[in-house]
Amino acid sequence: MMTQVTTSGQAERRRGRRPGGTDTRAALLAAAQEVFREQGYDGATVRAIARRAGVDAAMVNHWFGGKESLFAEAVLRLPFNPQDRIGALVREGSLDTLGERLVRAFLTVWDAQDGGVFAALIRSVAAHEQVAKALREFFHNNVFGQLVDVSDGLGELRANLVASQMIGLGMVRYVARFEPAAEQDVETVARAVGPTVQRYLTGKID
Amino acid sequence: MMTQVTTSGQAERRRGRRPGGTDTRAALLAAAQEVFREQGYDGATVRAIARRAGVDAAMVNHWFGGKESLFAEAVLRLPFNPQDRIGALVREGSLDTLGERLVRAFLTVWDAQDGGVFAALIRSVAAHEQVAKALREFFHNNVFGQLVDVSDGLGELRANLVASQMIGLGMVRYVARFEPAAEQDVETVARAVGPTVQRYLTGKID
Repeated sequence: MMTQVTTSGQAERRRGRRPGGTDTRAALLAAAQEVFREQGYDGATVRAIARRAGVDAAMVNHWFGGKESLFAEAVLRLPFNPQDRIGALVREGSLDTLGERLVRAFLTVWDAQDGGVFAALIRSVAAHEQVAKALREFFHNNVFGQLVDVSDGLGELRANLVASQMIGLGMVRYVARFEPAAEQDVETVARAVGPTVQRYLTGKID
Repeated sequence: MMTQVTTSGQAERRRGRRPGGTDTRAALLAAAQEVFREQGYDGATVRAIARRAGVDAAMVNHWFGGKESLFAEAVLRLPFNPQDRIGALVREGSLDTLGERLVRAFLTVWDAQDGGVFAALIRSVAAHEQVAKALREFFHNNVFGQLVDVSDGLGELRANLVASQMIGLGMVRYVARFEPAAEQDVETVARAVGPTVQRYLTGKID
């Protein structure tokens, strides 16, 4: 996280904006972590986060584009909004290969981070009930609907099951680091796990 | 954990053994947590754990039956040795229904605990590289071989994938508590997830 902030700050300075921008961005990330932890995702307002950071609420849109992306970066530690990324993944291919595309994208994103970033996220979710609540609200509001028809009675369960396999894959690859799953190439894992995710999305589960 | 220790201590007192036994047991659990964290599973010896607890090494066998069960209780927070339990599950039915039996057993065991116990385990694994290492060694040495033929080149990957789905299921049910997975009855989840585990155990994964 700090590396990102620093890099972005340097870029800002090269473009001649006020150096204070980096401080604003970092202050918003720190404030967001606190406010999401205290209020959950639904309860945390952009206004409350900005007030905690001591900056104008317009700075959230300026630096992050909105509450969803601020949550993604502050809590999920993803440099993008999973809602947008998953939406794009769904649109770029056919529904019957979505499972494998999801596994491949998940591994590609997290392989590029230090495994410690995934471990820090898991630690935070497991240590703070309010972070778990915020995660739950964010995924229900913004992510699951991208994957499944949540008006179908089974839709939410399907989305939960997809999440279970993805999170568990992250646990064995980045946290417990079981061998060979931790070192296996992305395509081998995508072939092994893709059909699981595909069945949860579109197959028979009851 | 504390409840268990107290209950067992009360039972000991009723049977007229020395009340100090409870202290010995609790001291061994605390020492084991430290030594496994420092040395991993392979590196931690029964002798070192007993020395840390200030008791004779024979007390480990007396109170826990051995290093495996001490690890299961001190680190995994399971009141039994998963090696034995999984071995029994394998023997009690046919191989082509093992996936569903494993899911059912996993949920039954952890539903009976406070969800916080699973969260505490995850937190510990995510926070301490040495706990992750110990977990890895324990599963490789004692658990995976119960599930798969590890002499087959794919065997270890199969076991890793089973672990990924089980751990991920625990994450969504007990830690993130996604709805409806957190509240779904065991049989519904076993029907949905059992085929995944079955495919990882015996199906085509490459």
